[in-house]
Amino acid sequence: MKVLITGGAGFLGNKLAIALSEKGSCADASGRQAAIDEILLLDHVELRILPAGCRAVVGDVADPAVIERVIDADTAVVFHLAAVVSGEAEENFDLGMRVNLDATRLLLERCRSLGTCPKVLFASSVAAFGPEGGRILSSTPNRPLTSYGTQKAIAELMLNDYARKGFIQGIAFRLPTVVVRPGRPNRAASSFASSILREPLQGQAMVCPVRKDVGVWLTSPRSIVSAFIHGADLDLEKLGTWRTLNLPGLTVALEEMVAALVRKGGDAGLISWELDPAIQKIVDTWPVSIDTPEATALGFVTDSSIDEVIDIFLEEDIERAPA
Amino acid sequence: MKVLITGGAGFLGNKLAIALSEKGSCADASGRQAAIDEILLLDHVELRILPAGCRAVVGDVADPAVIERVIDADTAVVFHLAAVVSGEAEENFDLGMRVNLDATRLLLERCRSLGTCPKVLFASSVAAFGPEGGRILSSTPNRPLTSYGTQKAIAELMLNDYARKGFIQGIAFRLPTVVVRPGRPNRAASSFASSILREPLQGQAMVCPVRKDVGVWLTSPRSIVSAFIHGADLDLEKLGTWRTLNLPGLTVALEEMVAALVRKGGDAGLISWELDPAIQKIVDTWPVSIDTPEATALGFVTDSSIDEVIDIFLEEDIERAPA
Repeated sequence: MKVLITGGAGFLGNKLAIALSEKGSCADASGRQAAIDEILLLDHVELRILPAGCRAVVGDVADPAVIERVIDADTAVVFHLAAVVSGEAEENFDLGMRVNLDATRLLLERCRSLGTCPKVLFASSVAAFGPEGGRILSSTPNRPLTSYGTQKAIAELMLNDYARKGFIQGIAFRLPTVVVRPGRPNRAASSFASSILREPLQGQAMVCPVRKDVGVWLTSPRSIVSAFIHGADLDLEKLGTWRTLNLPGLTVALEEMVAALVRKGGDAGLISWELDPAIQKIVDTWPVSIDTPEATALGFVTDSSIDEVIDIFLEEDIERAPA
Repeated sequence: MKVLITGGAGFLGNKLAIALSEKGSCADASGRQAAIDEILLLDHVELRILPAGCRAVVGDVADPAVIERVIDADTAVVFHLAAVVSGEAEENFDLGMRVNLDATRLLLERCRSLGTCPKVLFASSVAAFGPEGGRILSSTPNRPLTSYGTQKAIAELMLNDYARKGFIQGIAFRLPTVVVRPGRPNRAASSFASSILREPLQGQAMVCPVRKDVGVWLTSPRSIVSAFIHGADLDLEKLGTWRTLNLPGLTVALEEMVAALVRKGGDAGLISWELDPAIQKIVDTWPVSIDTPEATALGFVTDSSIDEVIDIFLEEDIERAPA
C-alpha cells in the first residue's frame, strides 16, 4: 500500500513519516496490517532530510494535477496535515481558503473518484471552537471567530459527509496546540506556546505576546504522531456517525510552563513579556480545556505532564549550539 | 437601492418579492428606510407571474457571470434562498455541493469584491443539526447526517466569517419546515409535511411516508417572509459575533395536523400511511423542537397555532378546483 502525508516537510509530517517508516505497516481495509510500500511526502517546500522509505513531492496541495499525481488507486491512507496557520489565514484570507478549504475538498474528491474508499486522517484544530470560554465538552458547538477556525470546521463537515456517504473512511482530529514545536517561531498565533520553552532551552531570548495566566491546551508532537498512527489502525466504524475527535491534551498556564522550564535548567530571564493585543485577542477565542471521553475510550492518550513534554523536546528536537 | 432574491421563482422568493414590493423600502447602511428601486429575482426557471416592481433573471446561481450580472455596487440587500432541497441533495451529491455550497461562496465573494458591504440574508435550515434528538438548544452543535444539512452548516460558517471580516453584513436563518408550502409535492424529504394538509384541503389524495407521531418543527410562509423583511431592517450589530439564528416555530405532530385539517373541513380519509424507511431515516435526524431565545429577543415571531397556519394557506395559496 501507499501512504500520503500532505504537509510532509513540516515537523509533524516529518515525525509521522519517520514513525510510519519504522513501523513499516498500516491496517488495510480488512483491518490486517499490510506492508507500506511507499510513503509520499507532499509539500510546497523542499525537505531537508528525507526519512527512509519516503519519496518527496514538491507541489501545491491545492493544485488538482498535483493531487492526481500523489493519490492513486494504491493509496490506502492519506494523512492530511497541510495547512495555512492561524495568524497567516487571518491576514491572508484567500490563501487560507485555498489551502485549508479548497485543497481539502480537492483531496476528498480525488479519493472519491477512485472508488477505493481510502482512509483520510485530517489535522483539524481546537480553533474550530469559538469563544465558549474555559471548558469545552464534546457537545460544544463550533462558532469560530477566526478564518482558520472557520476553515477547519468546514473541512471537518466535508470530511464527515464524505465518510458518511462512503466515499472515504474519514477521521478528523482536533489537535491541541503542539508543544514543543521544533524550529523557528512561525506565523501561528500560538507560536509563543512553543517559543516560551524552546528559545530559553536553546539559550535564546523570546518575547511573549500574551498574559502569563493564559492557559494552553497542549500536547507533545510525539502524542500527535501516536494519535495519527493509532487512528490509521483503528476500525473507523467504531467512531459512529460523527468522525471528529477532540484529542486529549493538558491544560498548562504559561506561568506553569515557565516554572517547568526552570526545573529543567532553562533561564526564565530570557523571556520578556510584551502584550500584543491582536494575538491576545485571537488566543482568547481558544478553549483552555476540553473533555475528550470519546478519544480516551478509543485509546488515544496524551503526555503525563509539562515536564514530560519538555523531556520529549530535549530528547528529539533541541538544537544545541555548536560546541 | 437594489435588492436581489435568489431562488426568486420559488414560492418563498415570490412571496418575499410581493411583500418587499408592497413595503417599497428597506433599511440602508445607516439604518434609515430607503426606497427600493428594483427587486431582481434570480432563478433557473421562468417566473409565471412577475410581481410589481420586480425584474426576473433566468440563470444559474452557481455561474460567476450570472452572479456578476445580478449583484453590483447598487445592490444593498441579497436574500439568498436558492437551494437544492434535502432529498435531491442526498441523491445528487455534486448538484447539492454546487448550488448549496459553491453558489453561496460565489455570492459572498462577489459581495466582498464590491467593497460595499451589502446585507446578505441566507436561508439555512434546521437540517444543519444532526440527530441530537428532541429539543435543540442555542448551544447544540451541528452534526448533520445529510449532505443538505452539511452544505447548509458550511454555508453558515462561511457567511459568519465573511461577516466577521467585514466583507458583508450577514445573517443566516435556520428555517423551520415551511408549512403549508403551496404547489406540488417536491423532492424535499419534508414534502409530506405540507402535502398532508395541502392535498386533502384541495380535495386530493396523498401518501404519507412517515409515522403519525412524527413531530414537525414548522412555521408558515407568512412568518418566514416577515422574518426576512424584519432581518433586512434589523441593526445586524445586535446579533453579536454569531450571525446564525434559529427562527421560532411550532412543534406539531402529524396526527395533530390531521386533527386540525378535520377542524378546517378537510377529509382525513384522503391520507394513506405508507412508511418509506429512507424518508423516515432522514426525518429522524431532524430536530422536533428548538429553543429560540435569541430570535425572540430580536423580535422574530411564529404563528399562534397549526389552525392559523392552515388559515394562512386558505387565504393565500389554496388552489380551488375550477367551478
